[in-house]
Amino acid sequence: MRFGINLFPTVGPADKDAAEYFDDALALVELAERLDFHHVKTVEHYFFAYGGYSPDPVTFLAAAAARTSRIRLVTGAVIPAFTHPVKLAGKLAMLDNLAHGRLDVGFGRAFLPDEFAAFGVPLDESRPRFDEGVEAVRRLWTETDVVFEGRFHRFGPVTLLPRPYQRPHPAVLVATAITPESAEAAGRNGYGLLLVPSINKREKVQEMIARYRAARETAGLDPAGGDIHLSYNCYLAEDADEAYRLGRRYSEWTNGKLLEAVSAWSTTRSEQYAGYEEIVRKVSSADFDRQLGDDRVLVGTPEAVLDRLRRIREWFGESTISLQVVSGNMPLAESERTVSLFAKHILPEFA
Amino acid sequence: MRFGINLFPTVGPADKDAAEYFDDALALVELAERLDFHHVKTVEHYFFAYGGYSPDPVTFLAAAAARTSRIRLVTGAVIPAFTHPVKLAGKLAMLDNLAHGRLDVGFGRAFLPDEFAAFGVPLDESRPRFDEGVEAVRRLWTETDVVFEGRFHRFGPVTLLPRPYQRPHPAVLVATAITPESAEAAGRNGYGLLLVPSINKREKVQEMIARYRAARETAGLDPAGGDIHLSYNCYLAEDADEAYRLGRRYSEWTNGKLLEAVSAWSTTRSEQYAGYEEIVRKVSSADFDRQLGDDRVLVGTPEAVLDRLRRIREWFGESTISLQVVSGNMPLAESERTVSLFAKHILPEFA
Repeated sequence: MRFGINLFPTVGPADKDAAEYFDDALALVELAERLDFHHVKTVEHYFFAYGGYSPDPVTFLAAAAARTSRIRLVTGAVIPAFTHPVKLAGKLAMLDNLAHGRLDVGFGRAFLPDEFAAFGVPLDESRPRFDEGVEAVRRLWTETDVVFEGRFHRFGPVTLLPRPYQRPHPAVLVATAITPESAEAAGRNGYGLLLVPSINKREKVQEMIARYRAARETAGLDPAGGDIHLSYNCYLAEDADEAYRLGRRYSEWTNGKLLEAVSAWSTTRSEQYAGYEEIVRKVSSADFDRQLGDDRVLVGTPEAVLDRLRRIREWFGESTISLQVVSGNMPLAESERTVSLFAKHILPEFA
Repeated sequence: MRFGINLFPTVGPADKDAAEYFDDALALVELAERLDFHHVKTVEHYFFAYGGYSPDPVTFLAAAAARTSRIRLVTGAVIPAFTHPVKLAGKLAMLDNLAHGRLDVGFGRAFLPDEFAAFGVPLDESRPRFDEGVEAVRRLWTETDVVFEGRFHRFGPVTLLPRPYQRPHPAVLVATAITPESAEAAGRNGYGLLLVPSINKREKVQEMIARYRAARETAGLDPAGGDIHLSYNCYLAEDADEAYRLGRRYSEWTNGKLLEAVSAWSTTRSEQYAGYEEIVRKVSSADFDRQLGDDRVLVGTPEAVLDRLRRIREWFGESTISLQVVSGNMPLAESERTVSLFAKHILPEFA
């Protein structure tokens, strides 16, 4: 098991000033490196408190790269549908060089109707745009004189500069919220997987992982290989009551911000997002006690969270876990406490 | 007079490894801050050694922001034609927050036909795309619930996150290579100006500045106000022979890389780029000795360059000068020498 920090903002200007948010986030990046965490990760979202302070994860990760020298940097995820592949491949290659090869690139389809509307991209083009975007970026990273004749982009011959630091290219991971077919496609293509167990039943996550591993095997790859990232809200305190009281507050905060962002799904349908019309109901009815009982949040004393992680390893196998240690206007000191307690009591158990 | 460092890459993989280029560039950023320079600046270009290591200036400047606390960060320039305004406004706002308000944003139309071709943007749409892009970014920075109904982009109502650190927004500068009308438009709109005296006759630069100041006056602004940036190749050494020998080598290198990048103009025409069909001939016939005689390059001993700068101030008035102190595979130590000599002998004369 490997553990990293997920810096997914869930604040708007009324909650926390953006400069303060970024100062805190960079302080957590430095702390995470000092305490030997595996990675830091951030997201691409717009307009809503749910992720909206991070419209360009590469910008934040470039600052993180300049403050660190060992920890890995992970996009979780960039959205090919919203950026031209020449631009996306180019800035990721810059980041990979700035970081001397510490970049892993998660790609996502995106799932918020308001974001698609702002970029003038139909939701129903989501999957082909994702597939084409990842393919174009991979070719720009690995080939010279690329001639690309896609449905959405046509260009070339061009040779991308700079070339990525890592050869043949940075590791690719695919974000999959609730769609087993996406997990299968990631396995078939030899990519890693970014999963969110908090919004899925345990059996659903197990199904996605099983289909991922089966697809790897069919493609002639080691079924036990591949990198599976799991994201969890995490709040630790030595005192159990304090951990549950504050962990609940911040988990509910994050859920509330997610609810604002997905509200357009109550009036949106897309054949490429089967089941998403249910998302507003699911998020509205999310219950912290049930999430805790199902080990969908890593909240509690270090001992209790260690037990949760042992069960998670039992269910899902070896994986890379991303800990969301900041939410809303949580003071930096509380995030630092979670990170420090995790490093002291939990990391050694999985070393 | 204010002085900053222009980090405009002019190398490809055969000349200098990208990771080494960025390491050196960040070392120069830190040196420039330590020696009290006003800004660092970088460019947006693609595919060619001429700027191609910097397809996304925001990525590099985010790393520079994380390594510094006082020096200003300038895009010179970002290209609205190649990035959706929601994405461009968002990542610039992230950078402005990461840098606690140290960002000035230069916007450019771009001028390399191969770049337009790769992004599928007709050269003949260059000016309306530029105007619309700058307007959209400015509105996203300053207004909430923005409804934008442009020719190329339609979106809204949306409220950009994060909000920029600087209010109402970071300073806007407009890059103008050879077109006096662009300088006039910048003046009318209250924007700053990015000029490149090395590719223009002195009288042409004076005309652009005069039209800029007149347009400011007509618009009811202080004609003496506004920020005018001038970029120069700069090579200093205590020994005059060494300065001229190496300064010539690197100026000719940069010119050679520019020639590769503009070669498509020998077979391209666009009504929005009047005069650009001449650019290949002009660049091919560029002569270092004549440039030196015309004070279009800042090469020589500190004393000689100080004299050049006094003449430049005489001709063009008070301005912000960006010094291109690295070119090709120049060793870092030579760039550092130029920066250090400049700080020691020249900055105090203009303090």
